[in-house]
Amino acid sequence: MTPRDAVSGNLLSDLPSSPEAAEVFHALLSFGNVRIERIVSTGQVSPEGFWYDQTQAEWILLVQGSATLRFEDELYGRNLAVGDFLYIAPHRRHRVQFTQASPPTVWLAIHIESNEK
Amino acid sequence: MTPRDAVSGNLLSDLPSSPEAAEVFHALLSFGNVRIERIVSTGQVSPEGFWYDQTQAEWILLVQGSATLRFEDELYGRNLAVGDFLYIAPHRRHRVQFTQASPPTVWLAIHIESNEK
Repeated sequence: MTPRDAVSGNLLSDLPSSPEAAEVFHALLSFGNVRIERIVSTGQVSPEGFWYDQTQAEWILLVQGSATLRFEDELYGRNLAVGDFLYIAPHRRHRVQFTQASPPTVWLAIHIESNEK
Repeated sequence: MTPRDAVSGNLLSDLPSSPEAAEVFHALLSFGNVRIERIVSTGQVSPEGFWYDQTQAEWILLVQGSATLRFEDELYGRNLAVGDFLYIAPHRRHRVQFTQASPPTVWLAIHIESNEK
């Protein structure tokens, strides 16, 4: 199996020099049930009242910038700094409350589809 | 399915203040066929003539420090800086030729067992 996406590079390259209209997603690897991507946020937040509710497991790392991620089952958002990582279990509802706009906030996200049906 | 390992933290915390005898591995997540770990290198390199030859796919990110990784099928080692990522296909033989000792070199490694038999 050969990944179709970029196989090497730098997570901090090609960042926008000013805030963009939307988050930018960059696929880094697709291998079986696993997808690795870079997400660049420049101030975007989840819409008011919107919660992500994903079937797959997700593991995120804040590579640059800062952000606040709120789980629905927690009272307050978690402030994330560079190097912070977080596991998001399938169907654990969450939303992004804040992302630093400039310099951009860079996330690494690992999406894992469960093999257990 | 509940991961048994740490589910949140910071990749740059609890780093050794001086070089250690061996690399230090820290499991961050085990989920199905995927294992995420932090590796802290403080000058260690692969033994002369030794090549890693792994059944699983691996994706690595250099989080801090610097390192040189050599693939057997390439003539020269690849110098890795902060933010550099690399995909290592199953059975692609490789070795670590250099790691910065101080401050420590920090790797994020994603190991993916193939589901295709």
